[in-house]
Amino acid sequence: MSLPSSNKHAGAGVITCKAAVAWAAGEPLVIEEVQVSPPQPMEIRIKVVCTSLCRSDVTAWLSQAPMFPRIFGHEASGIVESVGQGVTEFEEGDHVLTLFTGECMRCSHCTSGKSNICQVLGLERQGLMHSDHKTRFSLKGKSVYHYCAVSSFSEYTVVHSGCAVKISSSAPLEKICLLSCGVAAGLGAAWKVANISEGSTVVIFGLGTVGLSVVQGAKLRGSARIIGVDTNPAKNEKAKAFGVTDLLNPNDYDEPIAQVIKRMTDGGADYAFECIGDTGMITTALQSCCDGWGLTVTLGVPKVKPEMAAHYGLLLTGRTLTGSLLGGWRPKSDLPSLVSMYLKGEIKIDEYITHNVAFDDINEAFELMREGKCLRCVIHMQK
Amino acid sequence: MSLPSSNKHAGAGVITCKAAVAWAAGEPLVIEEVQVSPPQPMEIRIKVVCTSLCRSDVTAWLSQAPMFPRIFGHEASGIVESVGQGVTEFEEGDHVLTLFTGECMRCSHCTSGKSNICQVLGLERQGLMHSDHKTRFSLKGKSVYHYCAVSSFSEYTVVHSGCAVKISSSAPLEKICLLSCGVAAGLGAAWKVANISEGSTVVIFGLGTVGLSVVQGAKLRGSARIIGVDTNPAKNEKAKAFGVTDLLNPNDYDEPIAQVIKRMTDGGADYAFECIGDTGMITTALQSCCDGWGLTVTLGVPKVKPEMAAHYGLLLTGRTLTGSLLGGWRPKSDLPSLVSMYLKGEIKIDEYITHNVAFDDINEAFELMREGKCLRCVIHMQK
Repeated sequence: MSLPSSNKHAGAGVITCKAAVAWAAGEPLVIEEVQVSPPQPMEIRIKVVCTSLCRSDVTAWLSQAPMFPRIFGHEASGIVESVGQGVTEFEEGDHVLTLFTGECMRCSHCTSGKSNICQVLGLERQGLMHSDHKTRFSLKGKSVYHYCAVSSFSEYTVVHSGCAVKISSSAPLEKICLLSCGVAAGLGAAWKVANISEGSTVVIFGLGTVGLSVVQGAKLRGSARIIGVDTNPAKNEKAKAFGVTDLLNPNDYDEPIAQVIKRMTDGGADYAFECIGDTGMITTALQSCCDGWGLTVTLGVPKVKPEMAAHYGLLLTGRTLTGSLLGGWRPKSDLPSLVSMYLKGEIKIDEYITHNVAFDDINEAFELMREGKCLRCVIHMQK
Repeated sequence: MSLPSSNKHAGAGVITCKAAVAWAAGEPLVIEEVQVSPPQPMEIRIKVVCTSLCRSDVTAWLSQAPMFPRIFGHEASGIVESVGQGVTEFEEGDHVLTLFTGECMRCSHCTSGKSNICQVLGLERQGLMHSDHKTRFSLKGKSVYHYCAVSSFSEYTVVHSGCAVKISSSAPLEKICLLSCGVAAGLGAAWKVANISEGSTVVIFGLGTVGLSVVQGAKLRGSARIIGVDTNPAKNEKAKAFGVTDLLNPNDYDEPIAQVIKRMTDGGADYAFECIGDTGMITTALQSCCDGWGLTVTLGVPKVKPEMAAHYGLLLTGRTLTGSLLGGWRPKSDLPSLVSMYLKGEIKIDEYITHNVAFDDINEAFELMREGKCLRCVIHMQK
């Protein structure tokens, strides 16, 4: 990569660096030289240090949406390289987590105290920057699409200053990147969205990093029974270590798994979490909850059928269905406290990291995830 | 009717009286002489004074479930005629409301403080009594099915003592019967389930008695905007009187009504209530709510398609979907306080009663309801 020798702060020039570019749905990423624009007003340019691969990167990469070439990646840690005009919150050298859903701190939702769905910097689906609907990447003069306004599969990236949060410089960037999405999503679903109570029965569908973060959250809240459901027995050992008390593999049963769970729990669980990204499993989760107060939280991003279905009677008899983006955390306001809990040893993160790869080997991470062989694979962006 | 001349209290004999019997789905009820057994242990026999016709009676009457002959009716007031063995809570002459979903006061749900779905005396769907799965009605020696273990379209009926609640004898039975289901369901959905906040925006789909009771609940909570959606303009005047600020008739628009509501409310309502009994409208209600904290409560009993569908993205962005049976009220514990509010003039009931008919004319009530010409029609059971 070549850095301009002149001022590299506000108003710094274009950076040429390596990025893993997706050229077509499902095709291996190609490490290319890209040009990264300087940050525009209220934006920052980040030197990405580590980015972990999340299932939704894979889902988006496999989808046929015509947004190629594109740079994926949204769960990352890095160091501020330069700041755009008007940015006072960050300065060069700050350690940050990227935020795939931002927090402007000013819109009706950010100021409501009851929503993390920022109306200005929420989930960006067009592959562009929020502010001017343009891209900050180019490759041989051609624009390259962003992903969730983060695009961390690049040595440098530009994000809106509302889409990053400053964290303690004592936190290890190669671990803490998991709090940028997966681990935070699971803990928040357990604590902030479901507000799991002591002694409760919890069932988690899908024991990937998000599901096992719900498990961790449930265990820390003192759940009496934590039922983990997954078809991949390779996850069993980790699942037990995180706190799963009962493992269920739907392939071991001839009857619907919701029926098994209802029998095991004498009527259904207090809480159910869908962490697979399968709308059919949202229905199963709802069916696995008890009458009266059963709560189902859906966290997954479905790969295929986007519509979930449920018999009205499940609702009429007192079940509740809700969803959770980033575990309901207001990303700028809340994530630093999770970092602090990690530094004090109150929550686990390292245990989700099953693999580490160099940036050049990023396609290995995709293969591991597709084959169900990893929890989190951390990609080290810098040599 | 003929009452036995001997002791008519505990252990009293069979009563022969008039009942409106349904012989086949959708066919007019026939006033027949039926025999009503004495109350069995923990049951009471009630002289029904008034019963109002609720939409779910009509829905069940139209359904093809093979439970005929049957006596419908579940929203009623009456006077205890005799009590079965072991009943200490009631005595002859007590004024009561019938409960289509009971409260045993002892099961894990009744004692949880967070559920009104009694595990012993909940919604009865087999047309039988909870305790022995038999009926208490016979007609020329043939058993007659119950409805929701209440069957109030009979001059006398037998219910489990957990399926009735004693109320103040100063409450007018010809009005207060509406608190047995419809009005309580709407008020509870607004207050207990949704916990509507002051200044909020609320949208109600279906402006029948249940929908207009949600409207009343919202108005008393100080909602700033109450949007009522109905295709029947005959309901407009009453709707405004109860507090609807904006009336919407979906037939007046070429675009989906959820889109109209989102535009009117700058992103969606805080709360949406489905009071029609149409699973498609549950989806519409969810779409009409805002990101972040939008809450949809479904109260209706669908007549046709029992499965509702929703795009997962509606949930992931912070919407919640829940249901409510009898407004979440624990029927025995909570309904007396609503009666007391009515007696103090704090809630309206009389205004929902658009028609009164004598028992012999009960089919007129069914016609009025089917034609959308009434809110509540009270059937006066005794001459």
